[in-house]
Amino acid sequence: MSRIGVLGGMGPSATVDFMDKIIQLTPATRDQEHLPVIVANLPHVPDRSSAILGTGPDPLDALLAGIDVLNDAGVGVIAIPCNSSHHWYAQIAAHSRAPVIHIAQSCVAAIATASQDRPLRVAVLATRGALASGFYQHALRERGIDFLVPDASTGQDHVDACIRAVKGGDVQAGAAAFGRALEALAATGATAVIMGCTELPIAAQAARAAQHTPLALVDSSLELARATVAFALDKGWNKPTWVS
Amino acid sequence: MSRIGVLGGMGPSATVDFMDKIIQLTPATRDQEHLPVIVANLPHVPDRSSAILGTGPDPLDALLAGIDVLNDAGVGVIAIPCNSSHHWYAQIAAHSRAPVIHIAQSCVAAIATASQDRPLRVAVLATRGALASGFYQHALRERGIDFLVPDASTGQDHVDACIRAVKGGDVQAGAAAFGRALEALAATGATAVIMGCTELPIAAQAARAAQHTPLALVDSSLELARATVAFALDKGWNKPTWVS
Repeated sequence: MSRIGVLGGMGPSATVDFMDKIIQLTPATRDQEHLPVIVANLPHVPDRSSAILGTGPDPLDALLAGIDVLNDAGVGVIAIPCNSSHHWYAQIAAHSRAPVIHIAQSCVAAIATASQDRPLRVAVLATRGALASGFYQHALRERGIDFLVPDASTGQDHVDACIRAVKGGDVQAGAAAFGRALEALAATGATAVIMGCTELPIAAQAARAAQHTPLALVDSSLELARATVAFALDKGWNKPTWVS
Repeated sequence: MSRIGVLGGMGPSATVDFMDKIIQLTPATRDQEHLPVIVANLPHVPDRSSAILGTGPDPLDALLAGIDVLNDAGVGVIAIPCNSSHHWYAQIAAHSRAPVIHIAQSCVAAIATASQDRPLRVAVLATRGALASGFYQHALRERGIDFLVPDASTGQDHVDACIRAVKGGDVQAGAAAFGRALEALAATGATAVIMGCTELPIAAQAARAAQHTPLALVDSSLELARATVAFALDKGWNKPTWVS
Protein backbone atom coordinates (compact mmCIF):
# COMPACT_ATOMS: atom_id res chain seq x y z
CA MET A 1 0.00 0.00 0.00
CA SER A 2 2.98 2.28 -0.43
CA ARG A 3 2.34 3.31 -4.02
CA ILE A 4 0.54 6.10 -5.82
CA GLY A 5 -2.15 5.02 -8.26
CA VAL A 6 -2.91 7.09 -11.34
CA LEU A 7 -6.08 6.48 -13.34
CA GLY A 8 -4.98 7.93 -16.66
CA GLY A 9 -5.36 7.91 -20.39
CA MET A 10 -7.89 10.75 -20.30
CA GLY A 11 -6.06 11.82 -22.32
CA PRO A 12 -2.77 9.96 -22.61
CA SER A 13 -0.60 13.08 -23.02
CA ALA A 14 -2.16 14.64 -19.93
CA THR A 15 -1.21 11.50 -18.01
CA VAL A 16 2.40 11.73 -19.18
CA ASP A 17 2.43 15.42 -18.20
CA PHE A 18 1.04 14.48 -14.76
CA MET A 19 3.66 11.75 -14.24
CA ASP A 20 6.39 14.23 -15.19
CA LYS A 21 5.02 16.67 -12.61
CA ILE A 22 5.13 13.96 -9.90
CA ILE A 23 8.80 13.36 -10.75
CA GLN A 24 9.68 17.07 -10.80
CA LEU A 25 7.95 17.62 -7.44
CA THR A 26 9.79 14.74 -5.72
CA PRO A 27 13.11 15.65 -4.12
CA ALA A 28 15.46 13.00 -5.49
CA THR A 29 19.02 12.67 -6.74
CA ARG A 30 18.74 9.05 -7.96
CA ASP A 31 16.08 6.57 -9.09
CA GLN A 32 15.65 5.00 -5.67
CA GLU A 33 14.54 8.27 -4.02
CA HIS A 34 11.51 8.62 -6.32
CA LEU A 35 7.93 7.59 -5.57
CA PRO A 36 6.48 4.28 -6.80
CA VAL A 37 3.52 4.86 -9.10
CA ILE A 38 1.15 2.44 -10.80
CA VAL A 39 -0.51 4.00 -13.83
CA ALA A 40 -3.60 2.56 -15.50
CA ASN A 41 -3.51 4.48 -18.76
CA LEU A 42 -6.91 3.51 -20.18
CA PRO A 43 -7.75 5.81 -23.10
CA HIS A 44 -10.78 3.75 -24.17
CA VAL A 45 -12.91 5.14 -21.34
CA PRO A 46 -15.87 6.79 -23.13
CA ASP A 47 -15.68 10.58 -23.44
CA ARG A 48 -16.62 12.10 -20.10
CA SER A 49 -17.85 15.46 -21.32
CA SER A 50 -20.21 13.93 -23.90
CA ALA A 51 -21.64 11.58 -21.28
CA ILE A 52 -22.36 14.43 -18.85
CA LEU A 53 -24.07 16.36 -21.67
CA GLY A 54 -26.16 13.28 -22.52
CA THR A 55 -24.66 12.80 -25.97
CA GLY A 56 -22.38 9.80 -25.35
CA PRO A 57 -22.11 6.49 -23.47
CA ASP A 58 -21.65 6.37 -19.70
CA PRO A 59 -17.98 5.96 -18.68
CA LEU A 60 -18.63 4.92 -15.08
CA ASP A 61 -18.12 1.16 -15.55
CA ALA A 62 -14.83 1.79 -17.38
CA LEU A 63 -13.71 4.24 -14.67
CA LEU A 64 -14.50 1.73 -11.90
CA ALA A 65 -12.69 -1.04 -13.82
CA GLY A 66 -9.59 1.17 -13.86
CA ILE A 67 -9.99 1.88 -10.14
CA ASP A 68 -10.10 -1.91 -9.55
CA VAL A 69 -6.83 -2.40 -11.50
CA LEU A 70 -5.13 0.17 -9.27
CA ASN A 71 -6.50 -1.18 -5.98
CA ASP A 72 -5.57 -4.73 -7.01
CA ALA A 73 -2.03 -3.46 -7.68
CA GLY A 74 -1.79 -2.30 -4.07
CA VAL A 75 -1.99 1.47 -4.37
CA GLY A 76 -2.51 3.55 -1.23
CA VAL A 77 -3.96 6.64 -2.89
CA ILE A 78 -5.43 7.43 -6.31
CA ALA A 79 -5.15 10.53 -8.49
CA ILE A 80 -7.17 10.98 -11.69
CA PRO A 81 -5.62 13.59 -13.99
CA CYS A 82 -8.90 14.18 -15.84
CA ASN A 83 -11.19 16.89 -14.50
CA SER A 84 -14.41 15.85 -16.26
CA SER A 85 -14.27 12.35 -14.77
CA HIS A 86 -14.75 13.97 -11.35
CA HIS A 87 -18.44 14.27 -12.24
CA TRP A 88 -18.52 10.65 -10.97
CA TYR A 89 -16.25 11.37 -7.95
CA ALA A 90 -18.75 10.20 -5.32
CA GLN A 91 -19.26 6.82 -7.02
CA ILE A 92 -15.51 6.40 -7.65
CA ALA A 93 -14.52 7.29 -4.09
CA ALA A 94 -17.19 4.98 -2.64
CA HIS A 95 -15.96 2.12 -4.86
CA SER A 96 -12.21 2.50 -4.16
CA ARG A 97 -10.41 0.99 -1.18
CA ALA A 98 -7.67 3.62 -1.57
CA PRO A 99 -8.62 7.26 -1.00
CA VAL A 100 -9.08 9.33 -4.17
CA ILE A 101 -7.73 12.90 -4.25
CA HIS A 102 -10.21 15.33 -5.86
CA ILE A 103 -8.56 17.43 -8.58
CA ALA A 104 -10.93 20.41 -8.28
CA GLN A 105 -10.80 20.46 -4.49
CA SER A 106 -6.97 20.40 -4.65
CA CYS A 107 -6.95 23.17 -7.21
CA VAL A 108 -9.41 25.47 -5.43
CA ALA A 109 -7.72 24.88 -2.06
CA ALA A 110 -4.42 26.00 -3.63
CA ILE A 111 -6.07 29.16 -4.97
CA ALA A 112 -7.59 29.96 -1.57
CA THR A 113 -4.18 29.53 0.10
CA ALA A 114 -2.30 31.57 -2.51
CA SER A 115 -4.80 34.45 -2.69
CA GLN A 116 -4.66 35.17 1.06
CA ASP A 117 -7.83 37.27 0.96
CA ARG A 118 -6.75 39.39 -2.03
CA PRO A 119 -9.75 39.94 -4.30
CA LEU A 120 -9.92 37.37 -7.09
CA ARG A 121 -12.14 36.78 -10.07
CA VAL A 122 -11.43 33.33 -11.39
CA ALA A 123 -12.33 32.15 -14.91
CA VAL A 124 -12.99 28.41 -15.01
CA LEU A 125 -11.71 26.88 -18.26
CA ALA A 126 -12.93 23.32 -18.64
CA THR A 127 -14.91 21.00 -20.89
CA ARG A 128 -18.58 21.82 -21.35
CA GLY A 129 -19.33 18.60 -19.49
CA ALA A 130 -17.28 19.57 -16.44
CA LEU A 131 -18.92 23.01 -16.42
CA ALA A 132 -22.40 21.48 -16.71
CA SER A 133 -21.52 19.13 -13.84
CA GLY A 134 -20.65 22.16 -11.73
CA PHE A 135 -18.06 20.71 -9.33
CA TYR A 136 -15.66 23.63 -9.85
CA GLN A 137 -18.41 26.18 -9.28
CA HIS A 138 -19.41 24.28 -6.14
CA ALA A 139 -15.84 24.20 -4.78
CA LEU A 140 -15.33 27.91 -5.50
CA ARG A 141 -18.64 28.90 -3.86
CA GLU A 142 -17.76 26.84 -0.79
CA ARG A 143 -14.65 28.99 -0.34
CA GLY A 144 -16.34 32.26 -1.27
CA ILE A 145 -14.19 32.84 -4.35
CA ASP A 146 -15.72 35.00 -7.12
CA PHE A 147 -15.69 33.22 -10.46
CA LEU A 148 -17.02 33.24 -14.00
CA VAL A 149 -17.63 30.57 -16.60
CA PRO A 150 -16.91 31.59 -20.21
CA ASP A 151 -19.66 31.51 -22.79
CA ALA A 152 -19.42 31.73 -26.59
CA SER A 153 -18.49 35.45 -26.44
CA THR A 154 -15.83 34.99 -23.76
CA GLY A 155 -13.93 32.06 -25.19
CA GLN A 156 -15.59 28.69 -24.51
CA ASP A 157 -15.34 27.77 -28.21
CA HIS A 158 -11.59 28.39 -28.05
CA VAL A 159 -11.33 26.24 -24.90
CA ASP A 160 -13.16 23.41 -26.69
CA ALA A 161 -10.86 23.76 -29.72
CA CYS A 162 -7.77 23.77 -27.51
CA ILE A 163 -8.74 20.57 -25.70
CA ARG A 164 -9.67 18.82 -28.95
CA ALA A 165 -6.38 19.81 -30.60
CA VAL A 166 -4.21 18.55 -27.74
CA LYS A 167 -6.17 15.28 -27.56
CA GLY A 168 -5.61 14.94 -31.31
CA GLY A 169 -1.85 15.42 -30.89
CA ASP A 170 -1.66 18.96 -32.38
CA VAL A 171 -0.17 20.91 -29.47
CA GLN A 172 0.62 23.96 -31.63
CA ALA A 173 -3.03 24.33 -32.69
CA GLY A 174 -3.94 23.85 -29.03
CA ALA A 175 -1.53 26.62 -28.01
CA ALA A 176 -3.03 29.02 -30.56
CA ALA A 177 -6.55 28.25 -29.33
CA PHE A 178 -5.44 28.70 -25.73
CA GLY A 179 -4.07 32.14 -26.61
CA ARG A 180 -7.42 33.10 -28.17
CA ALA A 181 -9.24 31.85 -25.06
CA LEU A 182 -7.07 34.12 -22.87
CA GLU A 183 -7.72 37.11 -25.20
CA ALA A 184 -11.46 36.52 -25.04
CA LEU A 185 -11.32 36.75 -21.24
CA ALA A 186 -9.92 40.31 -21.36
CA ALA A 187 -13.33 41.99 -21.05
CA THR A 188 -14.55 39.81 -18.18
CA GLY A 189 -12.54 41.30 -15.34
CA ALA A 190 -10.97 37.92 -14.63
CA THR A 191 -7.74 38.09 -12.62
CA ALA A 192 -6.99 34.37 -12.61
CA VAL A 193 -7.71 31.31 -14.72
CA ILE A 194 -8.24 27.73 -13.61
CA MET A 195 -6.90 25.39 -16.28
CA GLY A 196 -9.60 22.94 -15.26
CA CYS A 197 -8.93 20.37 -17.97
CA THR A 198 -5.62 18.51 -17.99
CA GLU A 199 -5.06 19.14 -21.72
CA LEU A 200 -4.98 22.92 -21.14
CA PRO A 201 -1.60 23.09 -19.32
CA ILE A 202 -0.02 21.14 -22.22
CA ALA A 203 -1.27 23.82 -24.62
CA ALA A 204 -0.26 26.60 -22.20
CA GLN A 205 3.33 25.33 -22.03
CA ALA A 206 3.56 25.82 -25.80
CA ALA A 207 1.61 29.11 -25.91
CA ARG A 208 3.52 32.39 -26.03
CA ALA A 209 0.35 34.13 -24.82
CA ALA A 210 0.48 32.09 -21.62
CA GLN A 211 3.94 33.46 -20.79
CA HIS A 212 2.85 37.08 -21.23
CA THR A 213 -0.66 37.14 -19.81
CA PRO A 214 -1.38 39.28 -16.72
CA LEU A 215 -3.80 36.54 -15.61
CA ALA A 216 -2.62 34.11 -12.93
CA LEU A 217 -2.78 30.64 -14.49
CA VAL A 218 -3.69 27.86 -12.07
CA ASP A 219 -2.87 24.36 -13.35
CA SER A 220 -5.30 21.72 -12.05
CA SER A 221 -2.91 18.92 -13.01
CA LEU A 222 -0.03 20.53 -11.11
CA GLU A 223 -2.19 21.09 -8.03
CA LEU A 224 -3.33 17.45 -8.12
CA ALA A 225 0.32 16.37 -8.46
CA ARG A 226 1.29 18.58 -5.50
CA ALA A 227 -1.46 17.10 -3.32
CA THR A 228 -0.54 13.56 -4.40
CA VAL A 229 3.20 13.96 -3.81
CA ALA A 230 2.55 15.62 -0.42
CA PHE A 231 0.35 12.65 0.58
CA ALA A 232 2.97 10.12 -0.53
CA LEU A 233 5.98 11.89 1.00
CA ASP A 234 4.08 12.24 4.27
CA LYS A 235 3.67 8.45 4.27
CA GLY A 236 7.37 7.97 3.45
CA TRP A 237 6.71 6.12 0.18
CA ASN A 238 9.91 7.54 -1.29
CA LYS A 239 11.90 5.34 1.09
CA PRO A 240 12.68 1.92 -0.37
CA THR A 241 11.21 -0.87 1.75
CA TRP A 242 14.09 -3.20 0.84
CA VAL A 243 16.54 -0.99 2.74
CA SER A 244 16.51 -2.32 6.28
CA MET B 1 -5.02 -9.21 -22.31
CA SER B 2 -5.32 -6.23 -24.63
CA ARG B 3 -2.95 -3.89 -22.81
CA ILE B 4 0.71 -2.98 -22.97
CA GLY B 5 2.64 -3.41 -19.72
CA VAL B 6 5.59 -1.16 -18.90
CA LEU B 7 7.99 -2.05 -16.12
CA GLY B 8 9.35 1.40 -15.39
CA GLY B 9 10.90 3.70 -12.85
CA MET B 10 14.42 2.83 -14.00
CA GLY B 11 14.59 5.77 -14.09
CA PRO B 12 11.25 7.57 -13.75
CA SER B 13 12.01 10.24 -16.38
CA ALA B 14 13.02 7.56 -18.89
CA THR B 15 9.64 5.91 -18.28
CA VAL B 16 7.79 9.17 -18.94
CA ASP B 17 9.87 9.63 -22.11
CA PHE B 18 8.99 6.07 -23.19
CA MET B 19 5.25 6.60 -22.57
CA ASP B 20 5.39 9.80 -24.59
CA LYS B 21 7.01 7.87 -27.45
CA ILE B 22 4.22 5.26 -27.35
CA ILE B 23 1.67 8.07 -27.65
CA GLN B 24 3.53 9.84 -30.48
CA LEU B 25 3.89 6.56 -32.41
CA THR B 26 0.18 5.70 -32.15
CA PRO B 27 -2.00 7.05 -34.96
CA ALA B 28 -4.85 8.73 -33.06
CA THR B 29 -7.01 11.82 -33.27
CA ARG B 30 -8.79 11.37 -29.94
CA ASP B 31 -8.27 9.63 -26.58
CA GLN B 32 -10.18 6.51 -27.56
CA GLU B 33 -7.84 5.64 -30.46
CA HIS B 34 -4.80 5.35 -28.17
CA LEU B 35 -3.34 2.17 -26.70
CA PRO B 36 -4.13 1.04 -23.15
CA VAL B 37 -0.97 0.84 -21.04
CA ILE B 38 -0.39 -0.29 -17.47
CA VAL B 39 2.79 1.17 -16.02
CA ALA B 40 4.49 -0.15 -12.91
CA ASN B 41 6.83 2.74 -12.17
CA LEU B 42 8.95 1.17 -9.43
CA PRO B 43 12.03 3.32 -8.86
CA HIS B 44 13.07 1.43 -5.72
CA VAL B 45 14.44 -1.49 -7.75
CA PRO B 46 18.13 -1.70 -6.71
CA ASP B 47 20.60 -0.19 -9.19
CA ARG B 48 21.06 -2.64 -12.05
CA SER B 49 24.52 -1.56 -13.14
CA SER B 50 25.98 -1.82 -9.63
CA ALA B 51 24.50 -5.29 -9.19
CA ILE B 52 26.01 -6.56 -12.46
CA LEU B 53 29.39 -5.15 -11.40
CA GLY B 54 29.08 -6.89 -8.01
CA THR B 55 28.94 -3.67 -5.98
CA GLY B 56 25.24 -3.54 -5.10
CA PRO B 57 22.22 -5.66 -4.12
CA ASP B 58 20.52 -7.99 -6.61
CA PRO B 59 17.44 -6.39 -8.24
CA LEU B 60 15.95 -9.62 -9.61
CA ASP B 61 13.30 -10.11 -6.89
CA ALA B 62 12.16 -6.50 -7.31
CA LEU B 63 12.07 -6.86 -11.10
CA LEU B 64 9.99 -10.06 -10.87
CA ALA B 65 7.61 -8.40 -8.36
CA GLY B 66 7.02 -5.67 -10.93
CA ILE B 67 6.45 -8.25 -13.66
CA ASP B 68 3.84 -9.88 -11.38
CA VAL B 69 2.00 -6.56 -10.93
CA LEU B 70 1.78 -6.18 -14.71
CA ASN B 71 0.68 -9.74 -15.40
CA ASP B 72 -1.93 -9.52 -12.64
CA ALA B 73 -3.24 -6.33 -14.31
CA GLY B 74 -3.88 -8.30 -17.49
CA VAL B 75 -1.16 -7.06 -19.82
CA GLY B 76 -0.51 -8.93 -23.07
CA VAL B 77 3.06 -7.79 -23.65
CA ILE B 78 5.74 -6.17 -21.50
CA ALA B 79 8.35 -3.52 -22.33
CA ILE B 80 11.09 -2.53 -19.90
CA PRO B 81 12.58 0.88 -20.76
CA CYS B 82 15.80 0.16 -18.85
CA ASN B 83 18.65 -1.42 -20.78
CA SER B 84 20.73 -2.66 -17.83
CA SER B 85 17.81 -4.66 -16.44
CA HIS B 86 18.03 -6.84 -19.56
CA HIS B 87 21.01 -8.55 -17.93
CA TRP B 88 18.22 -10.60 -16.23
CA TYR B 89 16.14 -10.95 -19.41
CA ALA B 90 16.11 -14.76 -19.43
CA GLN B 91 14.82 -14.98 -15.86
CA ILE B 92 12.26 -12.21 -16.44
CA ALA B 93 10.94 -13.72 -19.68
CA ALA B 94 10.72 -17.19 -18.09
CA HIS B 95 8.79 -15.73 -15.13
CA SER B 96 6.29 -13.63 -17.13
CA ARG B 97 3.07 -14.96 -18.63
CA ALA B 98 3.09 -12.07 -21.14
CA PRO B 99 5.93 -11.98 -23.67
CA VAL B 100 8.70 -9.47 -22.91
CA ILE B 101 10.17 -7.42 -25.77
CA HIS B 102 13.98 -7.20 -25.56
CA ILE B 103 15.19 -3.60 -25.83
CA ALA B 104 18.64 -4.43 -27.26
CA GLN B 105 17.28 -6.95 -29.77
CA SER B 106 14.73 -4.34 -30.95
CA CYS B 107 17.43 -1.71 -31.21
CA VAL B 108 19.98 -3.86 -33.08
CA ALA B 109 17.28 -5.23 -35.42
CA ALA B 110 16.35 -1.65 -36.33
CA ILE B 111 20.01 -0.84 -37.07
CA ALA B 112 20.37 -3.91 -39.25
CA THR B 113 17.24 -2.95 -41.22
CA ALA B 114 18.23 0.70 -41.61
CA SER B 115 21.85 0.07 -42.60
CA GLN B 116 20.96 -2.20 -45.56
CA ASP B 117 24.48 -3.57 -45.83
CA ARG B 118 26.18 -0.16 -45.75
CA PRO B 119 29.34 -0.41 -43.63
CA LEU B 120 28.71 0.62 -40.06
CA ARG B 121 30.84 1.04 -36.97
CA VAL B 122 28.54 1.34 -33.98
CA ALA B 123 29.59 2.79 -30.62
CA VAL B 124 27.61 1.28 -27.75
CA LEU B 125 26.87 3.88 -25.08
CA ALA B 126 25.48 2.24 -21.96
CA THR B 127 26.04 1.78 -18.26
CA ARG B 128 29.22 -0.06 -17.24
CA GLY B 129 26.95 -2.83 -15.96
CA ALA B 130 25.17 -3.27 -19.29
CA LEU B 131 28.51 -3.31 -21.09
CA ALA B 132 29.93 -5.88 -18.65
CA SER B 133 26.82 -7.99 -19.16
CA GLY B 134 27.49 -7.91 -22.91
CA PHE B 135 23.97 -8.32 -24.34
CA TYR B 136 24.46 -5.47 -26.84
CA GLN B 137 27.78 -6.90 -28.02
CA HIS B 138 26.12 -10.31 -28.35
CA ALA B 139 23.19 -8.93 -30.43
CA LEU B 140 25.56 -6.95 -32.68
CA ARG B 141 27.86 -9.93 -33.24
CA GLU B 142 24.85 -12.11 -34.10
CA ARG B 143 24.03 -9.71 -36.94
CA GLY B 144 27.63 -9.18 -38.01
CA ILE B 145 27.64 -5.46 -37.18
CA ASP B 146 31.04 -3.91 -36.39
CA PHE B 147 31.01 -2.15 -33.03
CA LEU B 148 33.13 -0.57 -30.33
CA VAL B 149 32.69 -0.01 -26.62
CA PRO B 150 34.12 3.25 -25.28
CA ASP B 151 36.82 3.19 -22.63
CA ALA B 152 38.11 6.01 -20.44
CA SER B 153 39.89 7.68 -23.41
CA THR B 154 36.87 7.45 -25.71
CA GLY B 155 34.18 8.77 -23.45
CA GLN B 156 32.84 6.18 -20.99
CA ASP B 157 33.34 8.60 -18.09
CA HIS B 158 31.18 11.15 -19.90
CA VAL B 159 28.50 8.50 -20.53
CA ASP B 160 28.48 7.66 -16.81
CA ALA B 161 28.23 11.35 -15.90
CA CYS B 162 25.40 11.88 -18.39
CA ILE B 163 23.31 9.00 -17.01
CA ARG B 164 23.93 10.07 -13.41
CA ALA B 165 22.94 13.69 -14.17
CA VAL B 166 19.65 12.76 -15.88
CA LYS B 167 18.75 10.35 -13.07
CA GLY B 168 19.47 13.19 -10.63
CA GLY B 169 17.13 15.53 -12.53
CA ASP B 170 19.85 17.75 -14.07
CA VAL B 171 19.12 17.35 -17.79
CA GLN B 172 21.34 20.30 -18.76
CA ALA B 173 24.40 18.73 -17.10
CA GLY B 174 23.42 15.48 -18.79
CA ALA B 175 23.27 17.21 -22.18
CA ALA B 176 26.74 18.70 -21.68
CA ALA B 177 28.18 15.32 -20.72
CA PHE B 178 26.47 13.71 -23.72
CA GLY B 179 28.13 16.27 -26.00
CA ARG B 180 31.53 15.44 -24.49
CA ALA B 181 30.85 11.72 -25.01
CA LEU B 182 30.14 12.34 -28.71
CA GLU B 183 33.33 14.41 -29.04
CA ALA B 184 35.40 11.67 -27.45
CA LEU B 185 34.16 9.22 -30.10
CA ALA B 186 35.58 11.33 -32.96
CA ALA B 187 38.86 9.40 -33.12
CA THR B 188 37.26 5.95 -33.03
CA GLY B 189 35.90 5.78 -36.56
CA ALA B 190 32.39 5.28 -35.24
CA THR B 191 29.63 6.08 -37.75
CA ALA B 192 26.68 5.42 -35.46
CA VAL B 193 25.89 5.45 -31.76
CA ILE B 194 23.50 3.25 -29.82
CA MET B 195 22.00 5.25 -26.97
CA GLY B 196 21.83 2.02 -24.98
CA CYS B 197 20.63 3.51 -21.73
CA THR B 198 17.19 5.14 -21.59
CA GLU B 199 18.53 8.24 -19.85
CA LEU B 200 20.77 9.07 -22.84
CA PRO B 201 17.99 10.12 -25.27
CA ILE B 202 16.66 12.53 -22.64
CA ALA B 203 20.08 14.18 -22.51
CA ALA B 204 20.41 14.05 -26.31
CA GLN B 205 17.12 15.91 -26.78
CA ALA B 206 18.60 18.79 -24.79
CA ALA B 207 22.11 18.59 -26.30
CA ARG B 208 23.03 20.95 -29.16
CA ALA B 209 25.87 18.56 -30.02
CA ALA B 210 23.33 15.82 -30.72
CA GLN B 211 21.62 17.96 -33.38
CA HIS B 212 24.88 18.65 -35.21
CA THR B 213 26.78 15.39 -34.94
CA PRO B 214 27.58 13.45 -38.14
CA LEU B 215 27.02 10.25 -36.13
CA ALA B 216 23.70 8.44 -36.57
CA LEU B 217 22.07 8.33 -33.14
CA VAL B 218 20.00 5.23 -32.46
CA ASP B 219 17.60 5.57 -29.52
CA SER B 220 17.04 2.26 -27.71
CA SER B 221 13.94 3.63 -25.98
CA LEU B 222 12.41 4.72 -29.30
CA GLU B 223 13.15 1.34 -30.91
CA LEU B 224 11.56 -0.45 -27.95
CA ALA B 225 8.53 1.85 -28.26
CA ARG B 226 8.30 1.14 -31.99
CA ALA B 227 8.41 -2.62 -31.43
CA THR B 228 5.85 -2.37 -28.62
CA VAL B 229 3.40 -0.20 -30.57
CA ALA B 230 3.75 -2.44 -33.65
CA PHE B 231 2.94 -5.48 -31.49
CA ALA B 232 -0.11 -3.77 -29.96
CA LEU B 233 -1.50 -2.31 -33.19
CA ASP B 234 -1.11 -5.69 -34.86
CA LYS B 235 -3.33 -7.12 -32.10
CA GLY B 236 -5.85 -4.28 -32.51
CA TRP B 237 -5.47 -3.03 -28.94
CA ASN B 238 -6.18 0.52 -30.10
CA LYS B 239 -9.78 -0.48 -30.79
CA PRO B 240 -12.02 -0.03 -27.75
CA THR B 241 -13.59 -3.30 -26.65
CA TRP B 242 -16.76 -1.51 -25.49
CA VAL B 243 -17.54 -0.51 -29.10
CA SER B 244 -19.59 -3.35 -30.50
